[in-house]
Amino acid sequence: MKLNCDLGESFGAWTMPVDASVMNYIDQANIACGFHAGDPVVMKQAIKAAVSAGVTIGAHPSYPDLQGFGRRSMAMSDTELKACIQYQVAALSGMAVCEGETVRYVKPHGALYNDLMQDKRIRQTVMEAVAEIGNGKLALMIQAHPTANLLREEAAQFSLPLMFEAFADRRYTDDGYLMSRRLAGAVLNTQQAEAQVRQLLAEGTVTTESGRQLLLEVDTLCVHGDSTGAVEMVKTFRTMLNDAAI
Amino acid sequence: MKLNCDLGESFGAWTMPVDASVMNYIDQANIACGFHAGDPVVMKQAIKAAVSAGVTIGAHPSYPDLQGFGRRSMAMSDTELKACIQYQVAALSGMAVCEGETVRYVKPHGALYNDLMQDKRIRQTVMEAVAEIGNGKLALMIQAHPTANLLREEAAQFSLPLMFEAFADRRYTDDGYLMSRRLAGAVLNTQQAEAQVRQLLAEGTVTTESGRQLLLEVDTLCVHGDSTGAVEMVKTFRTMLNDAAI
Amino acid sequence: MKLNCDLGESFGAWTMPVDASVMNYIDQANIACGFHAGDPVVMKQAIKAAVSAGVTIGAHPSYPDLQGFGRRSMAMSDTELKACIQYQVAALSGMAVCEGETVRYVKPHGALYNDLMQDKRIRQTVMEAVAEIGNGKLALMIQAHPTANLLREEAAQFSLPLMFEAFADRRYTDDGYLMSRRLAGAVLNTQQAEAQVRQLLAEGTVTTESGRQLLLEVDTLCVHGDSTGAVEMVKTFRTMLNDAAI
Amino acid sequence: MKLNCDLGESFGAWTMPVDASVMNYIDQANIACGFHAGDPVVMKQAIKAAVSAGVTIGAHPSYPDLQGFGRRSMAMSDTELKACIQYQVAALSGMAVCEGETVRYVKPHGALYNDLMQDKRIRQTVMEAVAEIGNGKLALMIQAHPTANLLREEAAQFSLPLMFEAFADRRYTDDGYLMSRRLAGAVLNTQQAEAQVRQLLAEGTVTTESGRQLLLEVDTLCVHGDSTGAVEMVKTFRTMLNDAAI
Repeated sequence: MKLNCDLGESFGAWTMPVDASVMNYIDQANIACGFHAGDPVVMKQAIKAAVSAGVTIGAHPSYPDLQGFGRRSMAMSDTELKACIQYQVAALSGMAVCEGETVRYVKPHGALYNDLMQDKRIRQTVMEAVAEIGNGKLALMIQAHPTANLLREEAAQFSLPLMFEAFADRRYTDDGYLMSRRLAGAVLNTQQAEAQVRQLLAEGTVTTESGRQLLLEVDTLCVHGDSTGAVEMVKTFRTMLNDAAI
Repeated sequence: MKLNCDLGESFGAWTMPVDASVMNYIDQANIACGFHAGDPVVMKQAIKAAVSAGVTIGAHPSYPDLQGFGRRSMAMSDTELKACIQYQVAALSGMAVCEGETVRYVKPHGALYNDLMQDKRIRQTVMEAVAEIGNGKLALMIQAHPTANLLREEAAQFSLPLMFEAFADRRYTDDGYLMSRRLAGAVLNTQQAEAQVRQLLAEGTVTTESGRQLLLEVDTLCVHGDSTGAVEMVKTFRTMLNDAAI
Repeated sequence: MKLNCDLGESFGAWTMPVDASVMNYIDQANIACGFHAGDPVVMKQAIKAAVSAGVTIGAHPSYPDLQGFGRRSMAMSDTELKACIQYQVAALSGMAVCEGETVRYVKPHGALYNDLMQDKRIRQTVMEAVAEIGNGKLALMIQAHPTANLLREEAAQFSLPLMFEAFADRRYTDDGYLMSRRLAGAVLNTQQAEAQVRQLLAEGTVTTESGRQLLLEVDTLCVHGDSTGAVEMVKTFRTMLNDAAI
Repeated sequence: MKLNCDLGESFGAWTMPVDASVMNYIDQANIACGFHAGDPVVMKQAIKAAVSAGVTIGAHPSYPDLQGFGRRSMAMSDTELKACIQYQVAALSGMAVCEGETVRYVKPHGALYNDLMQDKRIRQTVMEAVAEIGNGKLALMIQAHPTANLLREEAAQFSLPLMFEAFADRRYTDDGYLMSRRLAGAVLNTQQAEAQVRQLLAEGTVTTESGRQLLLEVDTLCVHGDSTGAVEMVKTFRTMLNDAAI
């Protein structure tokens, strides 16, 4: 299991306070591509930091919505969404090549990420967009989910490799989605998050809101580096993953 | 001598009225990259049209200024300008690869184009940006000018190939720049434009505002497809260039 | 019954081709406020044109989406939507005062217009936004609908006057909404549109897709000035309304 | 002498870390209007905070450049600049009225502020824009400068009241401008800033980079609330101004 983190989410004079040192403990950096965050200077810096730390680079495309940080669903046509994703992936990919690196995967951001998990039409559009521009060399990172086999079948039609991602610090619903942040108990504290990761590593399951055990096939664990104590938690996960890998 | 035209300059619901049939008479399409015009859908359509017509694709990056259509100089730092150019070139390049084509050159747009001709610092930044992302495979298209040798020396430091462009329908000043559009006589009528192109093809010179003969080394001729009679004029230039090539 | 038209929908170098002469035949100009169209220069010009023609000015606010021309629904929070609407209305209002005129009403644009007709939460947010900034002096223009009484009750809670708008050239569904443009027969031809307006003026009804007579209380008729023959049709409606008013 | 501070410079998910408590110690809040910072939600919050603290509200318009935070000069036409300023002032003014308050003055932001001090054409355009929309009720806040009388004469032609602003923590050049931030010694430390304010209050002068005494007519002092110890410094200035006012 890998560790991934959203990075490069500053914009112009505004800084998104992710501790840069998090780069030393993760495997995969999801770098914003300018549509929800990440102007070209920020992108270049994030790419250089990833290259320097030996971290794999993924593109983190979004709905075109700086004001809403990509967190608001937008009713885009398939044609618009596909072109928007390819534009962003292409921009980051070309800039990465400039720094001697290659973008390896695409993780949609925010509302787009949630929408594709819920809406097959959007998911198919995203898959087609990534498959077409990736040409077999880009994976799509989406949420680890009990329907993994169906998702893989859908992706196979586009010859698109998938990566499944779990969340360390979010409570799961019984149907395998994330509890809304607005509900009490949706975000786990440090101790709970560590327990969730330990269980994932040991048994491949998470305990849902109602207490059920949910089997999840997980390739990578999403961590956040922007809260108090976040880097300490990332270090802990790093150690847990390293130990599990032995 | 080639014929080039600025294309893909629509945005969302707004159409820039370049006659699509112009694609049949030109050699090179300079396609907007989203910062002055050209949203991702428009870019994709322009790329497809160029591929379909067998026209070479160039990137047409700009200062980040949709409201001003890239026609307003902006005091960007070298770091900002370089990253902005590479972002745009990368975005178009990746989208072109999606359609089975490769971007071959970069022609800066509007105020950036004029600024780089006048300001060595900006020109060096543009050259470095294009050289770095092009890695020997992208040329930079700038204005054909009496100082061509100096410009080529500057570009050589970045191992950057240049393409020199002349304008069919603009009057030249004695120092080889374009007369400001605000001045009477700056824009040539059809007859004058044809005469200017004929002279360029026959003698390699243009007649400046004061009547001097200015020797210009020209690789490509910029034409516009958005005015009344424009496509007729492009057809005429096409014939003149074909005849000259025999 | 008044005639209204969407105006000021150009942006920067891009022109939305509404025939300016339409201003001479309408009563109310819905002027874009910068979020889907209408940069500050365009807005100022549209205001001056309305003032010069003696046409009443309305604000035409939108979701913040230039790329999508405000035609894509966006999942904004109430707080975001309210502030966005007030910002746009305030901007146009202040600029109108500069030209000696006052904005009299607000007509939401595009997806926001459709969403508020369908979704009570969005409608309440729009009503609250307009009532708060209008302070009794701004009406809200929405679609004339069989549920007019309910809509008026909702608006009364905000002490908000309503204006009801009908469409000349769109076919109505049985439940009083507009047929989707994607369906055949949704857009009426000139002859059909004239018949629909004649019926509205004579009997206060429209004939729906299934042939029913739908009673609509209509304050103003929306016309478009951007298609071939559009101005001719606007002139015709103007004459019909003038005749009906006698 | 008043104390003023730039506020409302967050945008969407990005926070500009001005300590909110600074509102308790200042007289005037310069609130961003959406073109360099300050989306509608941020603007509304800043207005409410100012109203709640009894602080006078000023509009802080900028060149249209979110990516550059309004710090990059843009070659706008007079028509564009004037409309851009009026749009922003109108937007903030209308939103302030919503909260029961009135915008009292306009302080241009960043590059626009510097450009108008250096370039008479830009200054005249700004003056005309503010005078026209202010209609005698808005002052223009610009830099206190030895040429105050000339500036006042220029403003008088537009019947425009001026407010002159000095900077607590910036070193002045001999000709009354601010030393470039890029030069050593341009930004004063706490002790130096306090000394500069003490001298301004006692003698109405600042000591320039070469040691000269420069007489400055100052209506208001610009302070910043976004650096370590900033609020402490603002409190100190507040006390110094209160003592001087006795």
